[in-house]
Amino acid sequence: MNQPAPLLASLFRWEKIESLLSDHARVQGMLDFEAALARAEAKTGVIPSSSASAIASKCQAQFFNFEDLARSAALAGNLAIPLVKQLTALVGSDDPEAMRFVHWGATSQDAIDTGFILQLREVLEEFESEIDRLSAALAILAGKHRATLMVGRTWMQPALPTPFGFQVAGWLDAIHRHRARLRDLQRRALVLQFGGAVGTLAAFGGKGAEVARALGEELQLTVPEIPSHSHRDRIAEIASTFGFITGTLGKIARDISLQMQTEIAELSEPQAEGRGGSSTMPHKHNPVACSVVLAAAARVPGLVSTVLSAMVQEEQRGLGGWQAEWEVMPEIIGLSAGALHHLTEAISNLEVHADRMSRNLELTRGLILAEAVQMALGKSIGRSAAHELIQKSSRRAQKENRHLRDVLAEDPAVTKHLNQKDLDRLFDPREYLGDSSALIDRVLATHSSRSSQESGKPVGKTAGRKD
Amino acid sequence: MNQPAPLLASLFRWEKIESLLSDHARVQGMLDFEAALARAEAKTGVIPSSSASAIASKCQAQFFNFEDLARSAALAGNLAIPLVKQLTALVGSDDPEAMRFVHWGATSQDAIDTGFILQLREVLEEFESEIDRLSAALAILAGKHRATLMVGRTWMQPALPTPFGFQVAGWLDAIHRHRARLRDLQRRALVLQFGGAVGTLAAFGGKGAEVARALGEELQLTVPEIPSHSHRDRIAEIASTFGFITGTLGKIARDISLQMQTEIAELSEPQAEGRGGSSTMPHKHNPVACSVVLAAAARVPGLVSTVLSAMVQEEQRGLGGWQAEWEVMPEIIGLSAGALHHLTEAISNLEVHADRMSRNLELTRGLILAEAVQMALGKSIGRSAAHELIQKSSRRAQKENRHLRDVLAEDPAVTKHLNQKDLDRLFDPREYLGDSSALIDRVLATHSSRSSQESGKPVGKTAGRKD
Amino acid sequence: MNQPAPLLASLFRWEKIESLLSDHARVQGMLDFEAALARAEAKTGVIPSSSASAIASKCQAQFFNFEDLARSAALAGNLAIPLVKQLTALVGSDDPEAMRFVHWGATSQDAIDTGFILQLREVLEEFESEIDRLSAALAILAGKHRATLMVGRTWMQPALPTPFGFQVAGWLDAIHRHRARLRDLQRRALVLQFGGAVGTLAAFGGKGAEVARALGEELQLTVPEIPSHSHRDRIAEIASTFGFITGTLGKIARDISLQMQTEIAELSEPQAEGRGGSSTMPHKHNPVACSVVLAAAARVPGLVSTVLSAMVQEEQRGLGGWQAEWEVMPEIIGLSAGALHHLTEAISNLEVHADRMSRNLELTRGLILAEAVQMALGKSIGRSAAHELIQKSSRRAQKENRHLRDVLAEDPAVTKHLNQKDLDRLFDPREYLGDSSALIDRVLATHSSRSSQESGKPVGKTAGRKD
Amino acid sequence: MNQPAPLLASLFRWEKIESLLSDHARVQGMLDFEAALARAEAKTGVIPSSSASAIASKCQAQFFNFEDLARSAALAGNLAIPLVKQLTALVGSDDPEAMRFVHWGATSQDAIDTGFILQLREVLEEFESEIDRLSAALAILAGKHRATLMVGRTWMQPALPTPFGFQVAGWLDAIHRHRARLRDLQRRALVLQFGGAVGTLAAFGGKGAEVARALGEELQLTVPEIPSHSHRDRIAEIASTFGFITGTLGKIARDISLQMQTEIAELSEPQAEGRGGSSTMPHKHNPVACSVVLAAAARVPGLVSTVLSAMVQEEQRGLGGWQAEWEVMPEIIGLSAGALHHLTEAISNLEVHADRMSRNLELTRGLILAEAVQMALGKSIGRSAAHELIQKSSRRAQKENRHLRDVLAEDPAVTKHLNQKDLDRLFDPREYLGDSSALIDRVLATHSSRSSQESGKPVGKTAGRKD
Repeated sequence: MNQPAPLLASLFRWEKIESLLSDHARVQGMLDFEAALARAEAKTGVIPSSSASAIASKCQAQFFNFEDLARSAALAGNLAIPLVKQLTALVGSDDPEAMRFVHWGATSQDAIDTGFILQLREVLEEFESEIDRLSAALAILAGKHRATLMVGRTWMQPALPTPFGFQVAGWLDAIHRHRARLRDLQRRALVLQFGGAVGTLAAFGGKGAEVARALGEELQLTVPEIPSHSHRDRIAEIASTFGFITGTLGKIARDISLQMQTEIAELSEPQAEGRGGSSTMPHKHNPVACSVVLAAAARVPGLVSTVLSAMVQEEQRGLGGWQAEWEVMPEIIGLSAGALHHLTEAISNLEVHADRMSRNLELTRGLILAEAVQMALGKSIGRSAAHELIQKSSRRAQKENRHLRDVLAEDPAVTKHLNQKDLDRLFDPREYLGDSSALIDRVLATHSSRSSQESGKPVGKTAGRKD
Repeated sequence: MNQPAPLLASLFRWEKIESLLSDHARVQGMLDFEAALARAEAKTGVIPSSSASAIASKCQAQFFNFEDLARSAALAGNLAIPLVKQLTALVGSDDPEAMRFVHWGATSQDAIDTGFILQLREVLEEFESEIDRLSAALAILAGKHRATLMVGRTWMQPALPTPFGFQVAGWLDAIHRHRARLRDLQRRALVLQFGGAVGTLAAFGGKGAEVARALGEELQLTVPEIPSHSHRDRIAEIASTFGFITGTLGKIARDISLQMQTEIAELSEPQAEGRGGSSTMPHKHNPVACSVVLAAAARVPGLVSTVLSAMVQEEQRGLGGWQAEWEVMPEIIGLSAGALHHLTEAISNLEVHADRMSRNLELTRGLILAEAVQMALGKSIGRSAAHELIQKSSRRAQKENRHLRDVLAEDPAVTKHLNQKDLDRLFDPREYLGDSSALIDRVLATHSSRSSQESGKPVGKTAGRKD
Repeated sequence: MNQPAPLLASLFRWEKIESLLSDHARVQGMLDFEAALARAEAKTGVIPSSSASAIASKCQAQFFNFEDLARSAALAGNLAIPLVKQLTALVGSDDPEAMRFVHWGATSQDAIDTGFILQLREVLEEFESEIDRLSAALAILAGKHRATLMVGRTWMQPALPTPFGFQVAGWLDAIHRHRARLRDLQRRALVLQFGGAVGTLAAFGGKGAEVARALGEELQLTVPEIPSHSHRDRIAEIASTFGFITGTLGKIARDISLQMQTEIAELSEPQAEGRGGSSTMPHKHNPVACSVVLAAAARVPGLVSTVLSAMVQEEQRGLGGWQAEWEVMPEIIGLSAGALHHLTEAISNLEVHADRMSRNLELTRGLILAEAVQMALGKSIGRSAAHELIQKSSRRAQKENRHLRDVLAEDPAVTKHLNQKDLDRLFDPREYLGDSSALIDRVLATHSSRSSQESGKPVGKTAGRKD
Repeated sequence: MNQPAPLLASLFRWEKIESLLSDHARVQGMLDFEAALARAEAKTGVIPSSSASAIASKCQAQFFNFEDLARSAALAGNLAIPLVKQLTALVGSDDPEAMRFVHWGATSQDAIDTGFILQLREVLEEFESEIDRLSAALAILAGKHRATLMVGRTWMQPALPTPFGFQVAGWLDAIHRHRARLRDLQRRALVLQFGGAVGTLAAFGGKGAEVARALGEELQLTVPEIPSHSHRDRIAEIASTFGFITGTLGKIARDISLQMQTEIAELSEPQAEGRGGSSTMPHKHNPVACSVVLAAAARVPGLVSTVLSAMVQEEQRGLGGWQAEWEVMPEIIGLSAGALHHLTEAISNLEVHADRMSRNLELTRGLILAEAVQMALGKSIGRSAAHELIQKSSRRAQKENRHLRDVLAEDPAVTKHLNQKDLDRLFDPREYLGDSSALIDRVLATHSSRSSQESGKPVGKTAGRKD
């Protein structure tokens, strides 16, 4: 029943999440819906209690014939139709009375959409734990390297000195925002889909809202104001949220891969036997985790745009758009989770070469502190005039391969306002870090307060699963 | 200074928003930043108060030479560089002392990003008002047509009867969620960008956080935990939110255009002289508003994917990704606003042909109530057995061009459980509407409570603008 | 070794192509490269002949341990590294001498890229046959319905009468263009990737070009001017070509699903037991093939944009972009093939309801021929004046629920130029079909000449496969 | 009439192409269609010759009121309707007889689509010239640096030595392919759109094909087999082709920006006054051209996916999809042209720092030639065993900060097969360049033969334009 993973799955995905997104989990999600539906209907007097337990007892994915499901889904157009048929037969073989009430009053989309939301809930738990693991690793790095100076780079050119810990605090800060978004997502997206054929709950003759409420309780899912199968903004929000996260992971991986370049050599993915080699070059140490994360960051945006395009769904339940989601949503989540996991692994053991950071700071012969001198000089001659003066001196320094400080020290327009001691201080990178240390602290304080909140939270219950 | 709008602007955009997204507004946004920066720096003792007012007095877009800005931006690589240069010259012509302190301690991205956020704030106000106008129009439609029955359609095929008001309530419900998202967006995205060259606020020698706080107050923008120019999740969230809204607008337009087809003729975009004609066919009444909205819904997802891809920005400030946002973000917002406005216009005067809705209900000769009979029969013989029985009868009815009721009335397997009176009732669409009425009420109640909240809210102040 | 297909594969994909895109086929493609490489190196005297045959004899996917491949690929970062390792061990167990020369001088990307191209070649053969099957079915439909009149619709509103065969000829014409593109693709994209680590064929000491030529002959692939691993325009062209085809398939499916709407009822997907039902509504006949094709048309564009974005690959061989292709390219092709196959099935048995086409023509009460009258009248009073006159009469006809002919017959401005007989003729749809018949013939003639060419073409040989 | 360019136009676009994509050019394209239509209809006896010249004489964009066009297009839903109205009035003011025949038998889409194709034809001429200019610059670079050795990099890590000229030859080779694609595009996409309301040319009473042929001659556009307004594969092919080109340009820009990093410093965008500065940092020399090209490469793929999605157009002429193309197609082309122009400028004056290339080659202390030794040793002990041995030695060299040659020289397993002289030769990068020189020659030969062809080609005539 369980398929062997595709060849590239271990590379691009994360096993823990893949099992929650597997065909088995997909079927179980739908069965959890069917079981809870029967229970809710029993509770509200729509069907007999005995039937509900008979139905629920068969709602186990391992009882189902997956090959038949696949074959029949191709004919029927969706997975719920053959699933309900198999379930009905299973129930009927034991309890012909209960068989009557399988899938009572629901439509395929109720089972498929809700089943996916149940899968998502479990995914979110694992995903959030891993995000917390990444946060913890980043917090350690940020704290440890609050005073490890490196070249801050803008437009891929040296800009100003900055602590490596400040760069990491920026990464961590973004992850904090994603953590908050995931919390919001739990509240906003973990919602029941239950409306019957066109959303009116017609089959319940006015009792539909009551059944819906009971079903929401069974599954611990929010009952929406009104069923609305063809409105997919919640789905789009889920897709986008994973898109945002993948984007940030990609940004971090891009940074690491740039700082891993041999000529820069400030960071290094952890090394291990068999890791990041080459089929031909024996000396290779490739940034495999970065490649995986960057590949995910290249793939997820196009998939998100598919989900957004597919929002234009027809009438009460759409044609084409909804069907497009079935494979795309798990793909988005799976790629995002794979990227998260691989990056978390890499960050947890990231090698930081503080000596090279320091050496690279020297490379520009003082240019990297040009702004510092400009600001000091600007107080006397104005920011703009200072800008022009230092710009010219910078070019001369570069051309003549000299340190900017030495060029400036010769210029009376400078020395009139700044003496050698001033210049020495201005060219000390430790003196031009602004609020970086306080800002790192702020992010770490947020991290601490979040972490203590998280550790206290009750573990989310997963309803209706017996396996 | 103000450009004439492009030829297709009136068609695809909404003038009110376009003026907030114009080049003039873009420049003014950046100047609002520069003025507020000067004031904040004066307040915190970084620059003299007199300089601040001298600078602020020149921060008016109409003083600027746009042709020079355009030409110089192409060389410099961004708009802030020539803007600061012109501003410095303008200030200097009046107050050489103040000229020293223009753009003190900030970087181009601080001005560009914050300027955009200031534009966005004004956009959001107009956009939300229009959403409220759309909501109000939808609420009226939903209430008015709570009992106007029509064919509910799934997979573009007739499914069950449903009130047209129920369909509209579904539209409205989605708009309610977007309204809530826009509120959240105000909270989460209206954030100051201010970090100096690499985010450390280096130029302020430790006073940066204080200046940032004062600047946030000046502009009434949230000061983030830590400046982080190359983390674009907030931008991506803005883009996606407009993407969600455009998706829903597209869904509504798709519904209208389908129901406007001559053979269905249930809805009609408002007619007007010169509206929706043809260059060749004199009888034409094309759904122009739908075409505009559907075009936007086709265009926005690709743009959102660009913003998501562009999140992978390098190091302290990126190369390529950030620059990609400059035209794409206004394009997303402008298309979304155009779609919103045109759809609001169309919905406000939508023609509803209740008679055709009713007539279309008859077209299927009872098939549309097949589920109703199945549920009734299912109570006796089980849902699944009833499903098969009615499925066969449905095919026979279709083949023989007869009403399903008449076919069933001949079948002893049916008449054993249902008499003619039962059948008559089961084939009355008014009897098979489930909870639709209550659900419409629920959405309308939410609408009312939201509307009363909105009407009481203080109008968002727009800081720093003088024009 | 062979995985069971995922649950939704039979629905969205086409088994024949899926097997060519399977993990097994992926591995075999790379092994075909390795075998051919060994043979080419033997032929050019780089390695001993005996070693080449020893290596080639082990290049059979069934000898390989897929679980180990998957696990090791996750560490190594690509599939070629563990594949070469396993192959080396396999060869070594029989022939320690030959083992020395496995993968001699090649890099991972040579094996991975060329392996994919070999898979693609086989895919193209099947895909083209299926396109030919679709063309044949369309040609039959177009010919059969050259005089079956229906409503031509623009902007989803009735425009002019048109033969259904003319609509189908338009579909067929697009397919003809795709057929030509696939031919071009064979010529342009079936190209060897072989350059060694950085493309210089360094390991061959100047003999590289000779080996490349021999390898191209072995595999019957074009040898490019220069190896260029990080230039992906050929890959992007493959992706786009399948994107174009999927777009056309989606367009056809959209047309069919619109014409299948109950109120229009001009076309019908073939019916079959268990096909297109509902889990709850017994009367349902859903357009399953259309849903599959439309889902593919919604998904492929986002994937193509990923491939285009991923073209920005770094230096000699990239990080992230190339890796993104590995799963995306098969996904594009698989979705496109699934759509092609399902649409071909549906078209081959499409039900055409000529009577409803004819009845729908009557629905507009003559409006659909408004242009015909305008052109006739225009000869006397000018196109523009006639346009205005008929536009007004059309509105009156609609308002008063009368036939346009009757309204016009009362208007002296009309009857001055057109008598009743003229009007009768002008309102006969058979009289206003322009060149449609000749145009259908032109497309069918092209079809015939293409088909006879195709039937004569030699079947493309697939090199190096033994299974 | 002509709008001032948007503020960011000079940065992201290329003036020459922008003027061909302007609103003025859009209107002129449609007017060129209308003029040619009148002439073709005169030639085929459909309208009087005198009317044709009267109409053609007014087909000049400068006669038109653009504000009215914009306003009316918003009502009408497209630009052709008000354009035809204005044109009719203009013609009528001079020649009431001719006024009758304006736009005779055509539909809006005929004018809009063909007008765009006429714009595209002019764009292609300029675009191709610029591509040729880029090719010429690349050919010079490739030839000049055929022996300038640098680090070849894969996965953003050092791989093998390679001539910089070889890297450039790879860039040039991709541009050659694009040049060929543009040629094909001229043949395939420069096609007339002319079918009247539903494509049947109904208004010509059977004479449509003759008029179409004459119109094709007038405009020097291919007449397609059959008009097919809602089939957009040709448009999608245009979009994708510019997408491919932009991808390659982005790849080149990525390479340059990486090699421009201060720590690598192998390449430099040309410097100029005011170019690539910073609003705050006086020392900055930002890669502005790269940023523009990378921004385009980030934006175009999403736009291409829009065009692909929009292929799903309804029936005879679609709703939403077609309209989406109107602004997106010029945007794709304009961004691509801007990227091409800015990169051509940068490449034409690219600074190459051969000394730094050489120095960077030394940085890895021999690791970069690990494969060379492996291949030499592999001849004795097998590729795989040599791979393992050198892999271990490489790690030791790295750990101990020694040259790989020195580590190997101590290893009897190595010295048994390779003496010191062998090792010295193996560690000389000039000895491990494979076929790079011959491959550069091959690309340059292709360049020369192409260039001579190009220079001889007749300049494409642009029909029907008078301005």
